[in-house]
Amino acid sequence: MILTVTLNTALDLTYGVPELVPHASHRVSDMSERPGGKGLNVARVLSALGHETVVTGFAGGSTGTVLRELLADLPPHGTGTDAAAPGTAPAPITDALVTVAGNTRRTIAVVDRATGDTTQLNEPGPLVTAAEWTALLGRYEELLAGADAVALCGSLPPGIHVGAYAELVRSARAAGVPVLLDTSGEPLRRGIAARPDLIKPNADELAQLTGSREPMRAARDARRRGAHGVVASLGPDGMLAVTPDGIWQAAPPAKVLGNPTGAGDSAVAGLLSGLVEGLRWPDRLRRAVALSTATVLSPTAGDFDRAAYEELLPRVGIEEHAPAA
Amino acid sequence: MILTVTLNTALDLTYGVPELVPHASHRVSDMSERPGGKGLNVARVLSALGHETVVTGFAGGSTGTVLRELLADLPPHGTGTDAAAPGTAPAPITDALVTVAGNTRRTIAVVDRATGDTTQLNEPGPLVTAAEWTALLGRYEELLAGADAVALCGSLPPGIHVGAYAELVRSARAAGVPVLLDTSGEPLRRGIAARPDLIKPNADELAQLTGSREPMRAARDARRRGAHGVVASLGPDGMLAVTPDGIWQAAPPAKVLGNPTGAGDSAVAGLLSGLVEGLRWPDRLRRAVALSTATVLSPTAGDFDRAAYEELLPRVGIEEHAPAA
Repeated sequence: MILTVTLNTALDLTYGVPELVPHASHRVSDMSERPGGKGLNVARVLSALGHETVVTGFAGGSTGTVLRELLADLPPHGTGTDAAAPGTAPAPITDALVTVAGNTRRTIAVVDRATGDTTQLNEPGPLVTAAEWTALLGRYEELLAGADAVALCGSLPPGIHVGAYAELVRSARAAGVPVLLDTSGEPLRRGIAARPDLIKPNADELAQLTGSREPMRAARDARRRGAHGVVASLGPDGMLAVTPDGIWQAAPPAKVLGNPTGAGDSAVAGLLSGLVEGLRWPDRLRRAVALSTATVLSPTAGDFDRAAYEELLPRVGIEEHAPAA
Repeated sequence: MILTVTLNTALDLTYGVPELVPHASHRVSDMSERPGGKGLNVARVLSALGHETVVTGFAGGSTGTVLRELLADLPPHGTGTDAAAPGTAPAPITDALVTVAGNTRRTIAVVDRATGDTTQLNEPGPLVTAAEWTALLGRYEELLAGADAVALCGSLPPGIHVGAYAELVRSARAAGVPVLLDTSGEPLRRGIAARPDLIKPNADELAQLTGSREPMRAARDARRRGAHGVVASLGPDGMLAVTPDGIWQAAPPAKVLGNPTGAGDSAVAGLLSGLVEGLRWPDRLRRAVALSTATVLSPTAGDFDRAAYEELLPRVGIEEHAPAA
């Protein structure tokens, strides 16, 4: 089983409007809602890849109830063709979220249907109490006992101390469970010091952490700060992995246009599933790049196009770098 | 008891953002949610004026549940000073909403805290079935039996035929209950033909109905189309009443700056309470203008400033017009 932790889950709403005009009134022309937060997105992709997944973190209030209902109803993942996909049946996602008194946040993506541009509004999330955090720690320890790997994903809700991820990384390492940390800012900086197996920052997050916009230099710096492995996502240029086993750069066969929402979460699912399956680094990276590219290509934000994934997988380019200092 | 009908109730969310930048991501800095839809707003003000109110219309899904919980918890209305206001204790608001299968809509007001400007996003509302509409008609007939007056307020949800308000106006008139219609577009046009006692259009709604932007001319035209009385709201210029009893113009003592959200609903509450109390037209208009001005002055959208209301009431200017053809 793979465990994902989403401390600040979200009910993700998408509103289509004919055109977004500031200070005007808009009638929403089309809308959708789905359970969100990075760790839940990762779990959807892991499920589609056939990996049993357990999600924990916090959910509460009326929005939390809706989120959990949608999570329970989650259809097989991947655009359209899942049922027909040979070999991989979706695996179950188990809800092990801890109930809190506060109301789970909503995020609203307002999509301008004229241009395709998205304006994002994110509620901050519920105020989590010390007792609720203690309950989460207990639940997490129990779940680690049965986990092959764990992903710690996304922002911290109000009330959670900035060293929370460092605490969760230490527990995972003490339990001998490989841990991937995907967050940003100070929680990332503190979390890295607890020596996670892997981090997956994008170029901005890496620059904020290290002060360098040169990916190789920044990734090496992040390793010195404590991360055993660093996979930097370079957007349309693919990914750079700087690991104890070597350094690789992976790139999609061509640049693609589309909606990058969720591409990073698909990459996390690719890396984590590859780790659990014992794949070599080049194959983990192929999977991560193909999945995130297929997510950009999907018409629905955060879903991946299964046919595109299968087609891209063998065509991802891998280049090994010399392990120079 | 005064009855208000809100066919398209809403959970009104207000999101404060430091600055709204299209196509950027925003963290909501402050937020509030309240039960909304014009008829619910009218009921809040009627309650604050000491009038027992019953609200009907549709509510459903998880958003409907939240709306009804907030409605049940509704605090005394009016900014801050209610408890200290001499004479008028808030009267109860009774929930007689009809439950529907669809999800009640959300509306989102995104307030740019740098400029105070508001960008509005309105979900369309649930699809209401024929059986649900029939249930509403039955509930409405029962409630009319105990009503001193009724207000029909706001937009129609999907699935409701455009002549719905005309049907509700006819039932009220058959039951001998004075009926005020506050809507716009084709539902207003159809509703007027059923001869409501009063309509309260703003200048834009009146122009859309009659083709004239000259308020006196347009209000007279609206009366010829079937409305017994017309109170046109002229924004900061006050109100123009064209009625079987005479023609009056009412104006606040000075133009005020603030948020006009809910000012029209406060005016409806003023007119309806004045009618039920048997006030003369000039006194009804004084109350409507003072309430709507005190709503613009309130720091919270849709609430009114009780102290400002009391202070404005005797200072509203009334001018009687000759009933020329």
